[in-house]
Amino acid sequence: MDLAIRADDVRAAAERIRPLARKTPVMTSASFDAEAGTRVFLKCENLQRGGAFKIRGASNLILSLPPASLARGIVTYSSGNHAQAVAMAAKHVGAQATIVMPEDAPRSKMEATRARGANIVAYNRFQGNREEIAAQILKETGGTLVPPYDHPMIMAGQGTAALELLEETGPLDALIAPVGGGGLLSGCATIAREMNPAIRIFAAEPEGANDTFLSMKAGERVTVAHPETIADGLRSPRPGALTFPVLQKLVERVVLVNDDEIRATVKFLLLRLKILVEPSGAVPAAAVLFRKLPEDIRSVGVVISGGNVDFEELARY
Amino acid sequence: MDLAIRADDVRAAAERIRPLARKTPVMTSASFDAEAGTRVFLKCENLQRGGAFKIRGASNLILSLPPASLARGIVTYSSGNHAQAVAMAAKHVGAQATIVMPEDAPRSKMEATRARGANIVAYNRFQGNREEIAAQILKETGGTLVPPYDHPMIMAGQGTAALELLEETGPLDALIAPVGGGGLLSGCATIAREMNPAIRIFAAEPEGANDTFLSMKAGERVTVAHPETIADGLRSPRPGALTFPVLQKLVERVVLVNDDEIRATVKFLLLRLKILVEPSGAVPAAAVLFRKLPEDIRSVGVVISGGNVDFEELARY
Repeated sequence: MDLAIRADDVRAAAERIRPLARKTPVMTSASFDAEAGTRVFLKCENLQRGGAFKIRGASNLILSLPPASLARGIVTYSSGNHAQAVAMAAKHVGAQATIVMPEDAPRSKMEATRARGANIVAYNRFQGNREEIAAQILKETGGTLVPPYDHPMIMAGQGTAALELLEETGPLDALIAPVGGGGLLSGCATIAREMNPAIRIFAAEPEGANDTFLSMKAGERVTVAHPETIADGLRSPRPGALTFPVLQKLVERVVLVNDDEIRATVKFLLLRLKILVEPSGAVPAAAVLFRKLPEDIRSVGVVISGGNVDFEELARY
Repeated sequence: MDLAIRADDVRAAAERIRPLARKTPVMTSASFDAEAGTRVFLKCENLQRGGAFKIRGASNLILSLPPASLARGIVTYSSGNHAQAVAMAAKHVGAQATIVMPEDAPRSKMEATRARGANIVAYNRFQGNREEIAAQILKETGGTLVPPYDHPMIMAGQGTAALELLEETGPLDALIAPVGGGGLLSGCATIAREMNPAIRIFAAEPEGANDTFLSMKAGERVTVAHPETIADGLRSPRPGALTFPVLQKLVERVVLVNDDEIRATVKFLLLRLKILVEPSGAVPAAAVLFRKLPEDIRSVGVVISGGNVDFEELARY
């Protein structure tokens, strides 16, 4: 089967998103290396515009839409960071964004999304179905859906994070990124393998939302009905139809981490590296910090996907 | 009167400290600019080795000492970040460091200093005198004092932060840095004025530790007996004998901020910019965020001096 994207799509995305996405820094830390037992290169998408990598994919799709589509508005569903990214990109092109968002999403994310001019339609994630709610809005408005991960333009846009990382570091033994729906990882894996054919690619996933882990074992997409993890950005119930084949082909293994490991990693990154990372963003760093990668890996690129945390939530750690 | 340092001393320091100090990133943020009403360039010394700018001055002095001096050990007094920096630089050259430290210094700083192999001599800052305790140790050991600010090599070393900042940004309307004893600001002001003769230089100081503010008004060094502010790194009781003449010549004004403004700025930098900054490090950012600089300043470099905060302290905000 043909995969949804190729490396050239990621390179094209890098050009397209330049007006909206920032080239984020790559951080290193002797204390992180010592704890992890390998050289670690952190791609800091928590320092990205909107506080997460999501602007890359959202702007790649939205900046490619014709004016007639933009005039009918943009619709998406998201637990938060994708929502903010869509709101930002929509505002940039003068389109109205409508966001279907779970009512228990972090308050900081809901406020930030509203502040960027988007309409929010809240729903209960144990009862409602966000795809159905979005479909109804699309039917009424004739707008365009900007899905959070399962779209070639989204996947290609997210992959620009790995493109920038590997351009800066040169070849690495391994790359690890968080996996929710698989948009970030599928894009990153696609470009990383082209830039560096020997690179080993790992997915990092919370134990309580291990749909990709189970799907890889099963050889087909498996659904976890109600994922429970503090990594709220990775609570997608199953891998995407377009992202999963890419992961199947390119990912060596899905590494699982539990919520305690995630919390400890958020604290480590905050107190030792002085950067704020949200639980979802800390998942691959936790996998490396708790030495869950093969021992012969001497250098690893880690995509720190976002940094949007409520202060109250942080204080509870 | 001749000033203690010249711009060339800062340039020489930049060469000398290269093995120990990191070139820290300069961050910008549209949301910070919007709040402040000016373009802001944050020199992130919280991302420096040891979590603060102090490694610059400490390594500049220690790397210039002859082996015979190093063999007799290094002594200093510090509320924390300078202590860590001295411990790191001493370890790098194989010298034993002894640190006189207030017993109520943040726990994270004491632990980090001990972990770097230094001896700690704790004292009560309301009863003891740190200079006298250090002098006694020096008498017994024949070691070398590495003072926290009032030394030409320390002042020149700290100035490398502004050298890197202005090399990256080009000319700016203004520069602002925190002032405790004046080591950082005197070094930064010296090199900034040489690189950019029109630059306007501001000091930022906590209201509860306003010894430099009072000294500038008085035209001579004034002592504040027991400074009280959450900015623990800026509790020095008076400007230095060597730093004060530099500040008098180069600083336009001392801008005061209160503890509430400092706390709000720490939270802003954490939640919006995703970086952890300690209260002392946030003082100049607070001055800019709360619009205390003259309105005609269109661009300002802000030295974020450090990021070492106890998690428990942070959670109390």
